[in-house]
Amino acid sequence: MRVDGRKADELRNIHIETGYLKHPEGSVLITVGDTKVICTASIEDRVPPFLRGEGKGWISAEYSMLPRATETRNIRESSRGKVSGRTMEIQRLIGRALRAVVDLEAIGERTIWIDCDVIQADGGTRTASITGAFVALTMAVAKLVEEKELPTFPVTDFLAATSVGIIEEVGVILDLNYIEDSSALVDMNVVMTGAGEFVELQGTGEESTFTAGQLQEMLAAAKKGMKELSAIQKEALGEIAEKIGSKPTDGSEKQS
Amino acid sequence: MRVDGRKADELRNIHIETGYLKHPEGSVLITVGDTKVICTASIEDRVPPFLRGEGKGWISAEYSMLPRATETRNIRESSRGKVSGRTMEIQRLIGRALRAVVDLEAIGERTIWIDCDVIQADGGTRTASITGAFVALTMAVAKLVEEKELPTFPVTDFLAATSVGIIEEVGVILDLNYIEDSSALVDMNVVMTGAGEFVELQGTGEESTFTAGQLQEMLAAAKKGMKELSAIQKEALGEIAEKIGSKPTDGSEKQS
Amino acid sequence: MRVDGRKADELRNIHIETGYLKHPEGSVLITVGDTKVICTASIEDRVPPFLRGEGKGWISAEYSMLPRATETRNIRESSRGKVSGRTMEIQRLIGRALRAVVDLEAIGERTIWIDCDVIQADGGTRTASITGAFVALTMAVAKLVEEKELPTFPVTDFLAATSVGIIEEVGVILDLNYIEDSSALVDMNVVMTGAGEFVELQGTGEESTFTAGQLQEMLAAAKKGMKELSAIQKEALGEIAEKIGSKPTDGSEKQS
Amino acid sequence: MRVDGRKADELRNIHIETGYLKHPEGSVLITVGDTKVICTASIEDRVPPFLRGEGKGWISAEYSMLPRATETRNIRESSRGKVSGRTMEIQRLIGRALRAVVDLEAIGERTIWIDCDVIQADGGTRTASITGAFVALTMAVAKLVEEKELPTFPVTDFLAATSVGIIEEVGVILDLNYIEDSSALVDMNVVMTGAGEFVELQGTGEESTFTAGQLQEMLAAAKKGMKELSAIQKEALGEIAEKIGSKPTDGSEKQS
Amino acid sequence: MRVDGRKADELRNIHIETGYLKHPEGSVLITVGDTKVICTASIEDRVPPFLRGEGKGWISAEYSMLPRATETRNIRESSRGKVSGRTMEIQRLIGRALRAVVDLEAIGERTIWIDCDVIQADGGTRTASITGAFVALTMAVAKLVEEKELPTFPVTDFLAATSVGIIEEVGVILDLNYIEDSSALVDMNVVMTGAGEFVELQGTGEESTFTAGQLQEMLAAAKKGMKELSAIQKEALGEIAEKIGSKPTDGSEKQS
Amino acid sequence: MRVDGRKADELRNIHIETGYLKHPEGSVLITVGDTKVICTASIEDRVPPFLRGEGKGWISAEYSMLPRATETRNIRESSRGKVSGRTMEIQRLIGRALRAVVDLEAIGERTIWIDCDVIQADGGTRTASITGAFVALTMAVAKLVEEKELPTFPVTDFLAATSVGIIEEVGVILDLNYIEDSSALVDMNVVMTGAGEFVELQGTGEESTFTAGQLQEMLAAAKKGMKELSAIQKEALGEIAEKIGSKPTDGSEKQS
Repeated sequence: MRVDGRKADELRNIHIETGYLKHPEGSVLITVGDTKVICTASIEDRVPPFLRGEGKGWISAEYSMLPRATETRNIRESSRGKVSGRTMEIQRLIGRALRAVVDLEAIGERTIWIDCDVIQADGGTRTASITGAFVALTMAVAKLVEEKELPTFPVTDFLAATSVGIIEEVGVILDLNYIEDSSALVDMNVVMTGAGEFVELQGTGEESTFTAGQLQEMLAAAKKGMKELSAIQKEALGEIAEKIGSKPTDGSEKQS
Repeated sequence: MRVDGRKADELRNIHIETGYLKHPEGSVLITVGDTKVICTASIEDRVPPFLRGEGKGWISAEYSMLPRATETRNIRESSRGKVSGRTMEIQRLIGRALRAVVDLEAIGERTIWIDCDVIQADGGTRTASITGAFVALTMAVAKLVEEKELPTFPVTDFLAATSVGIIEEVGVILDLNYIEDSSALVDMNVVMTGAGEFVELQGTGEESTFTAGQLQEMLAAAKKGMKELSAIQKEALGEIAEKIGSKPTDGSEKQS
Repeated sequence: MRVDGRKADELRNIHIETGYLKHPEGSVLITVGDTKVICTASIEDRVPPFLRGEGKGWISAEYSMLPRATETRNIRESSRGKVSGRTMEIQRLIGRALRAVVDLEAIGERTIWIDCDVIQADGGTRTASITGAFVALTMAVAKLVEEKELPTFPVTDFLAATSVGIIEEVGVILDLNYIEDSSALVDMNVVMTGAGEFVELQGTGEESTFTAGQLQEMLAAAKKGMKELSAIQKEALGEIAEKIGSKPTDGSEKQS
Repeated sequence: MRVDGRKADELRNIHIETGYLKHPEGSVLITVGDTKVICTASIEDRVPPFLRGEGKGWISAEYSMLPRATETRNIRESSRGKVSGRTMEIQRLIGRALRAVVDLEAIGERTIWIDCDVIQADGGTRTASITGAFVALTMAVAKLVEEKELPTFPVTDFLAATSVGIIEEVGVILDLNYIEDSSALVDMNVVMTGAGEFVELQGTGEESTFTAGQLQEMLAAAKKGMKELSAIQKEALGEIAEKIGSKPTDGSEKQS
Repeated sequence: MRVDGRKADELRNIHIETGYLKHPEGSVLITVGDTKVICTASIEDRVPPFLRGEGKGWISAEYSMLPRATETRNIRESSRGKVSGRTMEIQRLIGRALRAVVDLEAIGERTIWIDCDVIQADGGTRTASITGAFVALTMAVAKLVEEKELPTFPVTDFLAATSVGIIEEVGVILDLNYIEDSSALVDMNVVMTGAGEFVELQGTGEESTFTAGQLQEMLAAAKKGMKELSAIQKEALGEIAEKIGSKPTDGSEKQS
Repeated sequence: MRVDGRKADELRNIHIETGYLKHPEGSVLITVGDTKVICTASIEDRVPPFLRGEGKGWISAEYSMLPRATETRNIRESSRGKVSGRTMEIQRLIGRALRAVVDLEAIGERTIWIDCDVIQADGGTRTASITGAFVALTMAVAKLVEEKELPTFPVTDFLAATSVGIIEEVGVILDLNYIEDSSALVDMNVVMTGAGEFVELQGTGEESTFTAGQLQEMLAAAKKGMKELSAIQKEALGEIAEKIGSKPTDGSEKQS
């Protein structure tokens, strides 16, 4: 049995509130158990220097925690004067994951800025950020399409993320909360598309290891969770959900 | 008539939701019109170096905006690597204001960290921060008192803040929203106690000036707003409100 | 009686030495009691990014103290790698104050850089900086006018600053020195024009408060000091003083 | 066929030169094709703050590239004044991976600093760093054991890393060089122990995705490469290799 | 003939005003032609970490220019957030030079902070800083000796600095002003003791070279200037000058 | 006798391996006793802002040490977030020295970046850097000349550097290793051209002094060492060596 009474392959209660803030083109408050993240998508009409003149867009993500999102107060990264390695790693992960399901050529020379601000943390903040950011981003591009700024709908598939891990005496579990995460032998973040393909797989046995068999078991649990997450995203997006992947994209395009 | 239909001396709709986050000792979400700020109070059992061994405590405040709290996205201060002058000025103001109504000796060698994170901005974020932070702080110290960590209730009076200003063709107005703030000839932030005394007065005529008569008119409007703010804080605090100033403090003490 | 024998509403000995340095377009050494500040004004033929193409100019101020301007040595901000909140607050105040009496459109697309470097500190360094910087700035623009670089004299009125405060057992005093400033219950900086209008009013009761009556008393003392400061500036400026406000400016212009 | 004529599951030429520098306790120059990394291990007799008094040690890694390790010159991170997200991510990975095969309690309150400096880059610098750093670290602790500073040999198993990926028209390949890495649809870094268990698995389809079947194929290729890497490390370590894992460690210990 | 009419081996007008500021233990305003530097010496009762418990003191120097000390305004190093290479080089030079004539063991575990702030620059700011700082430092230690804080007078000899250089069509010249410095083929800074020995010799032919013969000619000019500088320092120091080197120090001591 | 058995005026074993890395236009590994430095030269087709449009090029140098190049591990400057004063001083010296023997107009609007990375340190790292960097730079420009990018060979003379110093009981010595450097009374770095002229002379008696006679003795030892260094560079450069100074340059050109 798990600390919060869940079954091994059971997600926490998840809720996605869309249109949470008035200024951003897309915004949600995603709640995963006690983890709460504000995800916003902002459209900027230019691209980073390395892409200028390439005729394609970019997705850039930033992640931060309120100082008291956690049990004890953290010093702000702005006060420290630098962003931690953990934050940078998460930011890079969020951006990379979202870029896998957006046709960057179709968005033109624009940058979509994703901001994930954790207001309350109880484990799984990076996966909640990805799951929420996908919805915020989709709403922002839907607005561009509606305003005829984009000719086609550039989101090619659903995208969500969750964690799986191994706990002593419990075994493989899905969607770790903070207490589980702290004591897990193995922790793996999985980002998948609606079609069930992998976008990112980051497994680590901090001071521990895992076998090929354990890996398979974890991937199976992740797959189950992912289906449920897609359904929640679909409901949050309403009619917009139907436009995802609406423009048939062939393999060569996704791979260019 | 004002852009949002308010009367000259009318506050916006204000709501203070207490216990907004689960980890901090005190936390609120304060809503002032479209301005929304999460204010938290965290207790740390030590003081800054300059106070060590002095037998008294400290209140330190930090302020930040989500990148997309505003109309257009702002670069995070953590990405810039430094905190702006505006942010520092606001942080210093919030801390100074709160220290005026807390008996620092009564809290012992502790630091109360105030974090004000603006999630949506529409003018008046610094005054909303002070008004909300006062409630979060009071709840945090109430918890300390309840747990017998403190012998007396250290909050000596109510404290709230609002803005007043002068708009061309309208004259003196109370509680400026962003559009009003942008076009105001004079902008003045006022921090007052429940007893109606001034704690801070910061008036500035950016590229303009104001007369002694206009000053009096603005102070009168501020006083009216302040009474309403105290009532809203009182309701949010419930029973705790009655403990404020419960330990009779004489002038000499406040001035030591 | 005050620590240095002055009457409650008496300024310290004040002297303004013009043309103090050979390179800057305008420069003074202002002495206010034991406080000494070098103020320079430098003309740069371009404006900050946010003003480009707007056809108006800008005034930007920087403030610093020599490490040993004070009783004990301070670490240089360049060694720390960042500017303190106090410094930023003062810099913003100086710039804002000066911009209130300069017709920014009349100076064209130029930036006037004001540098205030405190070489000896004994309280009131920010107000001495403003009073001295006004003279340096006026001399610099006078040179531009003389060289036919500017068609009209862009300084619309005199501008000076001083402090007032409340000391226990003494009451309201004018122009606080360091010892007085350290023990004051209330400290208020006032920036006024030659016409007696307010430009900035920053009153703070660090760990204390003040009443409306005390505010009136402080403003009266400030007004008296301000007249004397204008006279000293006038003498320092000589003939140039007569050009100030020479171009009749109506209210709407000052307020645009 | 691959760009450099290798078979799909063939490693590049790999050489590990031990004792490369005279000062560090352990040092190697590892050459993987045209990728060259100097890895050193330095013993420090204290631990980071968060471990003080815990009776266990720590392994901390830093990674850097010479500015001209690459095709075009990179700006030094010391000149930029900050370490990039990529560098931080790699540093965290190297440290985490090595900690999985070292009994941190057995090394006592010491930090082993791992420095990986890439002097020439042609893809796979992070995996070469891990493979080389393992040898440098093992030599450094062997010296401690020899000098009777440590009672038991704290390295519990071999550890090496390599990359696998998917290239269009080629399919799954092992040990990607720079050109392959740049055009790969999927790139996966695998860190494994000598016993064939996973320590880290980081797979990413930058702007692409991969199926469960492709994952299995990549893991099989990684396993083959890993065996060869262990053999190369064994030869480089000579007699020291026999001490690895010599102290029987049970599962519970690794998991503590 | 030189641009300012001086003879080849003629110093500029030099003046040293002692006791320039009221707070520092020692302070001077040194004027060398149009170059003006405020030099202060501050005593701190502790030493840098690397000297703790060694029973000896340290001398640390900092150097800065006011933004408008020069023809065109320089950005403050505090605004840039970092100290330039040029500034660091000068600071290291000043500290090293002064340490050569102070018996560091005799000052005990104290740091003497030297601050050289250039308020007006016309070439030779680093040599003026050394010459002025020597006087400020000597006055500060004289105060310590007078207050019986030090048993012996720790300054072992006079120390001054000047520049020599080679100008096309003029040849070797002494004490270069800014215009000369800008066009010099060779520029050499010389720091010497009162006894005529070298402490520092820094000659550089930026994009040029110099012969052994030219070197001898420059050293002869430097020697002449140095005698005159010592005389000026002697006069500025008054009676204190007689204490310099008063405690006979043998070679071995200076070399320890 | 010296600690390593050398004669007073004997250089250490010196070896220059050219073409050490595959990416840079020029690269060497220079070995001076136990000191090893990788020097690379990279050509960039633009110049720093202050030279734009001047029709001439620039040489910019950077210097760094691996953390464990030394006896005890140094913290990386990238981790510290700033470059030390020592590093900046060395970088400026290397750049300045090389610019003295390169006709900057002849290289056109290009920057030659010199990177000197010390992988093992045993004294004399800055002089080894200059000696090695000269060879790397010469090879890089030879490639430009060969590819017809440059019409003439822009290197006007050989350039090398070494140190001389004074050791107690030994006297003047050439090419100090780390132990000698640590105990030297005087330490002087000399940069000379193949023609025997001085480019840089930096002598310092840290906490000591030296006479004119000792200076002459040191310069004589330096001259001897310099001849041997030029011969080693010549051999390393092979045929390219003959092109150095091939285009007769007159004094006026060098001095422009």
